[in-house]
Amino acid sequence: MKIINLISDMQKESLAARLAKKTVGFVPTMGFLHEGHATLIEQARKENDIVVLSIFVNPLQFGQNEDFDAYPRDIARDEKIARELGVDYLFYPTIEEMYKEDRTTLITVEKRVDVLCGKKRPGHFDGVATVVMKLFQIVMPTQAYFGMKDAQQVAVIEGLISDYHLTVQLVRVNTIREEDGLAKSSRNVYLTPKEREEAPAIHQALQLGKSRLEQGASISETKEFVENYIKEHTASEIDYVEIYSYPNLKEVKEPRDGESLILAVAAKFSRARLIDNIVFSYTKGEN
Amino acid sequence: MKIINLISDMQKESLAARLAKKTVGFVPTMGFLHEGHATLIEQARKENDIVVLSIFVNPLQFGQNEDFDAYPRDIARDEKIARELGVDYLFYPTIEEMYKEDRTTLITVEKRVDVLCGKKRPGHFDGVATVVMKLFQIVMPTQAYFGMKDAQQVAVIEGLISDYHLTVQLVRVNTIREEDGLAKSSRNVYLTPKEREEAPAIHQALQLGKSRLEQGASISETKEFVENYIKEHTASEIDYVEIYSYPNLKEVKEPRDGESLILAVAAKFSRARLIDNIVFSYTKGEN
Repeated sequence: MKIINLISDMQKESLAARLAKKTVGFVPTMGFLHEGHATLIEQARKENDIVVLSIFVNPLQFGQNEDFDAYPRDIARDEKIARELGVDYLFYPTIEEMYKEDRTTLITVEKRVDVLCGKKRPGHFDGVATVVMKLFQIVMPTQAYFGMKDAQQVAVIEGLISDYHLTVQLVRVNTIREEDGLAKSSRNVYLTPKEREEAPAIHQALQLGKSRLEQGASISETKEFVENYIKEHTASEIDYVEIYSYPNLKEVKEPRDGESLILAVAAKFSRARLIDNIVFSYTKGEN
Repeated sequence: MKIINLISDMQKESLAARLAKKTVGFVPTMGFLHEGHATLIEQARKENDIVVLSIFVNPLQFGQNEDFDAYPRDIARDEKIARELGVDYLFYPTIEEMYKEDRTTLITVEKRVDVLCGKKRPGHFDGVATVVMKLFQIVMPTQAYFGMKDAQQVAVIEGLISDYHLTVQLVRVNTIREEDGLAKSSRNVYLTPKEREEAPAIHQALQLGKSRLEQGASISETKEFVENYIKEHTASEIDYVEIYSYPNLKEVKEPRDGESLILAVAAKFSRARLIDNIVFSYTKGEN
């Protein structure tokens, strides 16, 4: 595995790979790798000639009240994991390298952001879109891997790719779950033992909600059902339960057969706020 | 010459050219080609294996009060000119092709825009940056040619290239002038015979202003000199005379030796507003 710190070095390698007609699979991360990242890397490894992992804690996507400095970092451990998973290039630039010159522009995301978690994080997805555009131009991937745990981020990046006619193919990677259905997250360690026992109810609620909706319940009935189910089975406080079209994240009055939908939840436990979602093609009458 | 209407077709050709290690020179235009464009195309032709000309009147860069519909178009004539100049690909997409899907993002330009002509055209350079980013991703040029007549546009595009680490090289092409120094412009035909006689004073004023500055005049003395010279030699109304660092377009208190500067003018004649500028490396004591 080659560790690369400079943009120009990364571009040299990427360009050589592309000119040699190799496929380049790219996994962009902010480091502190966990099982979710490992799944993305493994899939990229299976499907590409070259695998590039980037580790960059992007200051531009942190809000005023979000602690950029406190974001966990462990490059030595990350490097070891990347090596074991067969990454070819670890792109690990400094902030100065990524934002070297006076930045003159920003990619502002105007749609898909004023819902779900984006609602409370103004500017967050501008920072994400801007750095992902930079990374795509540096790494020149044929495929880029993103986890559906953050489905809104995937929706934003798909918009970016469409807007600028980028030739990279985004690969949506399903959320990795514990055996009992709880979405894997580095935040799960903050759950008390009792909360950990209750937490799989979130995923159950999503699955049952999908069923209800496809059996004919209205959007509002379905959201109410999901909310009530989580309230009954956990001591968490519901932040939101939402249903939107996916990936454009628009309100849905009555779903059409075959329409792609997201059913998403955020719930606060005593020390952890958990998010989860399912994205599915609405099939009327499906059980 | 191949005329291409679809983004995907253009990308196929560009990708093939790049994989064949050919250089791709790109001239983006809004059509209604004139001598300025011809100069750009000729230089691109000399310096590249493949030359791509795009013609797209970009609605996104027109303001509310700027008449997008009235912008002159003559594709038959443009096609003939392009063919004669040896263009390989004329990329000529429809608006629906370029803005096919719901646009979700915009590239907002935060610097280099609140001066010169950009001051009175809020949002104009957002539209320019957004469409140029699209075109760069579609045409995948190794070199892109822009005329220095619109030096602010060049500054914005250079910012864009730097921000996103684009591998395209921007080629600044000098303003083409009439024998008497008047910058060529399709607007010159709107000058009365008397105004046409006076108009070369603009370029004279810029050159004399540069000399004064390098001989030790202050920034404000130089601007005043240029303004007075134009007033004395023409009946035009001065819109602005400005001196900034180039390309970052920041105010300059006292120029440093070797600093790149722009001295720019906009002046209104009875039926034409003319702009002109010179960009130069400040050399103290130079005549």
